[in-house]
Amino acid sequence: MKINGKHEHTIWLDTENPGLIHVFDQRYLPHSIRIFNISTTDDAVYAIREMVVRGAPLIGVTAAYGMYLGCREALDRHDPTEYLAMVGEKLKGTRPTAVNLVWAINEVMDAIAIAEAWSEKISLALKRAHEIKEEDISTCQRIGLYGVELIKQITSRKEGAVNILTHCNAGWLATVDWGTALSPVYHAQKEGIEIHVWVDETRPRNQGASLTTFELVEQGIPHTLITDNTGGHLMQQGMVDIVIVGTDRTARNGDVANKIGTYLKALAAHDNNVPFYVALPSSSLDVSIKNGVQDIPIEERDADEVKYVRGLDGAESKSVLISPKETQALNYGFDVTPAKYVTGLITERGICEASEEGIKILFPEKFD
Amino acid sequence: MKINGKHEHTIWLDTENPGLIHVFDQRYLPHSIRIFNISTTDDAVYAIREMVVRGAPLIGVTAAYGMYLGCREALDRHDPTEYLAMVGEKLKGTRPTAVNLVWAINEVMDAIAIAEAWSEKISLALKRAHEIKEEDISTCQRIGLYGVELIKQITSRKEGAVNILTHCNAGWLATVDWGTALSPVYHAQKEGIEIHVWVDETRPRNQGASLTTFELVEQGIPHTLITDNTGGHLMQQGMVDIVIVGTDRTARNGDVANKIGTYLKALAAHDNNVPFYVALPSSSLDVSIKNGVQDIPIEERDADEVKYVRGLDGAESKSVLISPKETQALNYGFDVTPAKYVTGLITERGICEASEEGIKILFPEKFD
Repeated sequence: MKINGKHEHTIWLDTENPGLIHVFDQRYLPHSIRIFNISTTDDAVYAIREMVVRGAPLIGVTAAYGMYLGCREALDRHDPTEYLAMVGEKLKGTRPTAVNLVWAINEVMDAIAIAEAWSEKISLALKRAHEIKEEDISTCQRIGLYGVELIKQITSRKEGAVNILTHCNAGWLATVDWGTALSPVYHAQKEGIEIHVWVDETRPRNQGASLTTFELVEQGIPHTLITDNTGGHLMQQGMVDIVIVGTDRTARNGDVANKIGTYLKALAAHDNNVPFYVALPSSSLDVSIKNGVQDIPIEERDADEVKYVRGLDGAESKSVLISPKETQALNYGFDVTPAKYVTGLITERGICEASEEGIKILFPEKFD
Repeated sequence: MKINGKHEHTIWLDTENPGLIHVFDQRYLPHSIRIFNISTTDDAVYAIREMVVRGAPLIGVTAAYGMYLGCREALDRHDPTEYLAMVGEKLKGTRPTAVNLVWAINEVMDAIAIAEAWSEKISLALKRAHEIKEEDISTCQRIGLYGVELIKQITSRKEGAVNILTHCNAGWLATVDWGTALSPVYHAQKEGIEIHVWVDETRPRNQGASLTTFELVEQGIPHTLITDNTGGHLMQQGMVDIVIVGTDRTARNGDVANKIGTYLKALAAHDNNVPFYVALPSSSLDVSIKNGVQDIPIEERDADEVKYVRGLDGAESKSVLISPKETQALNYGFDVTPAKYVTGLITERGICEASEEGIKILFPEKFD
């Protein structure tokens, strides 16, 4: 998608230096567009843990390139195999909820297993990382093509813009391009469908207020920022036609882990007969988890993310304290929406019910 | 309740100057304790509209004192009756959702109607304003005495602290003393019951993060600040025993208008069998509204309250921009929770069902 009118990906290999990966530093958006360089596995670990990059699919792609850098670093080690395994563990430990992270690391490990020589492993790792990146783009594009059909259906029964509510950022900044939840929105724009997006600000880190809005401004899509408290009222008043969100991990039973607060929006959608869809690449499916509500690990982050809010003061980025210093805070990053509140899953192979049966129809190989 | 260990009310008449009312300026809490002076009706209008004072009961008391100042000002006018009517309308126009405002103004108008002389009307207005203030204190105290019984019941079936979740600020800062939703909490503390409060930050104006936390710090009550997105997850995980919130207006059918986001917490409470109670003085009941969801007016406030967040940067209070400048925002102040999601209403006359039948049992005179 576009930044300043120019088509960009969120992550790319340097054109001249094969040991250098670039990403947009999402900590500074929307106020400043900065590029962060990843030239070591430690940089990759930092980028994921500190949320320079975020979004389950992009975390996966970044980890894949991290593993490629790990192969390069392994070359100079006494025991390269042990070293790379250690890099894999370090990367896996950065964020606990997004399953794409583990998936992508395992994909690279599998890809290099066939080679003996480390020089060859390096080539295979880069090839697989590139493939994962390209697959992510085409996966997200297909999610958009399936998802836009839902938006089209709404236009057949109402006048004016289709109102889509989304939580957090599951746009192209959360992937390589297109996004998951926002891909149907971008495809609707391409097809000339009149749309309007309600953007939940998504405290504590405000990915909605800072990233989703940034994307929509750059793409020229009408949108309105709302507090996380507002979606229920809008749905009750008939101001939302469809909710589409992303996911960091979807369990075998269709339970959906996503940014904290998603569950509340799903409840409001259910209460007001608003369709609630989750858009995801199949790499976010984790059929090893039978019951999402019970078993998906939920990341707990630093309490200061709740007590401080970052924003622009004049030209300067500042963090301001919003509570008494003495007050303690708790910061869960995700929640799990029970499958019964999910109207459907929008995947790269089509739309299915959020259930083991539904997932099995589209992805039978996951159950082998 | 206490500030710096000293017992305070949120509003009081100056001990020497009968034309001067003092309130705590809640815009500067928790970082700075400042007193705002109200010596004209314009000051009273400003204090309510700009949220120097907020909370339905305190808005009512402030408006009552505003009417008293209006009587004093009327004395020098060509047509005092017309002038006072105009003051009443100006005060009523400050905030549309809290019904206590209209109620308190009408109470003062009724009280002064029996007098002919304006000097007498002034005395009667002050007397009625004082009474409304005192009634508010005793009403809130009684709400606490009834509400604490609910907390006691929980202690009989679980070990450890009772976890109470609240949204916005319905503490003593929203009233004159004690509060509505927090009065049961303060009574539980008095009785030595182990309690812990989950405080929703309550965007956009963060009354939870800035006011409820401030109260609980000053009163020494264990509490944890959470984002507005978090309550659903906590309830799903069994970490909340009871939800207690306030209300700005409760309709004849038991539908409850309260700070935006309340509805989402009610849905989560319902989904997880967590009792959801609303604490209110009967002055917040509006039996003229039959259907709350359809007919309670919802205030729309300045979009900049969504786009900017106020907090402390070092020693300085700053507002920081959290979205692109180009992004538009929408700011509804309240939402309405349908009665079916309300376990009960905690009033100064006891606890009743959130329904016309329930309200009628405790407040039959409202239906005359």
